[in-house]
Amino acid sequence: METLEAIRKRCSLKNQLSGKEINPELIETILGAARLAPSARNTQPWRFVVVQGKDTIKKLTETAFFGPAVVVGDAPVIIFVCARPDDDVTVEEKEYYLFDLGLAVENMLLAATDLGLATHLVASFNEAEVKRLLNIPEDVRVVIATPLAYPPGASYDEAAEEKLSQRSRKDMREIAYFNKWGEQAAE
Amino acid sequence: METLEAIRKRCSLKNQLSGKEINPELIETILGAARLAPSARNTQPWRFVVVQGKDTIKKLTETAFFGPAVVVGDAPVIIFVCARPDDDVTVEEKEYYLFDLGLAVENMLLAATDLGLATHLVASFNEAEVKRLLNIPEDVRVVIATPLAYPPGASYDEAAEEKLSQRSRKDMREIAYFNKWGEQAAE
Repeated sequence: METLEAIRKRCSLKNQLSGKEINPELIETILGAARLAPSARNTQPWRFVVVQGKDTIKKLTETAFFGPAVVVGDAPVIIFVCARPDDDVTVEEKEYYLFDLGLAVENMLLAATDLGLATHLVASFNEAEVKRLLNIPEDVRVVIATPLAYPPGASYDEAAEEKLSQRSRKDMREIAYFNKWGEQAAE
Repeated sequence: METLEAIRKRCSLKNQLSGKEINPELIETILGAARLAPSARNTQPWRFVVVQGKDTIKKLTETAFFGPAVVVGDAPVIIFVCARPDDDVTVEEKEYYLFDLGLAVENMLLAATDLGLATHLVASFNEAEVKRLLNIPEDVRVVIATPLAYPPGASYDEAAEEKLSQRSRKDMREIAYFNKWGEQAAE
């Protein structure tokens, strides 16, 4: 899939997760995409815990995820994205491990979209419980999770169509300024 | 360009910035890609200040950027990526505005790569001075900047070849675990 098309078609498909198995090579491609992201001073703070066991996924949905996030339990794979804040730089209270994890995760989401897999970023989990279930060390933060699943329909495009048609984004003039804050580009 | 190819070819081309003008439509495509990133509760905290004026870029390199980051002054465009932390969620000290900005910025970098433009994430600037020069409000944080430029050579691929051949990333086994922290996938 073309890059700009993947960027356009990536969306959160939380109710479109089939239990169909995912080939380990695809998971490796997706993690490999995340691995190539840039990071401050090339610190590469990202760590991924790929959960595939049905029992662990069941426990996670029973005790760690909450609210609408429990739907991730329908997926055959959940990826948790973690980091030690001290592995990256902090500048005037801006903790760049969070920014750098964002860079890597977007690569992951786009690679998944390119491969026809549904994703859905979720932060609605009890972090302490996730860490307990997955043996994650004390000083590591769990920042985000995403299920990885084939959509139940015939194709990604079919599954994403409704969601994409309802997509809501701020107007470009609200988010992009030119030369000074608040100024628009010359017409 | 194919998505996985753009992810593979994106690299920091800090010494490959020509002054050649960039069509405003390309800048819009790049900002439009950033705009489509996901964010916590769809808060879309990202704000972009696109600096194109030669005088402002000169001032920025003289007084705001420091160290090797001053090379950004060679580019015809510098994009500053900003946010109000309060526009996004904070969960147990994890400030998701930083994570969400990372998601949007990776889209931006990949769209630029797809269009044959060089980028280079830079955090080595005096934030107060950037805010003063660009009229950025007190409560807004400036998180990252990137120049946007055509490479001086014939093509992006030519410009990136050396950099990509020297790329260094942690081994997959250092960053990806399966089912529990520290565990590897079954062979």
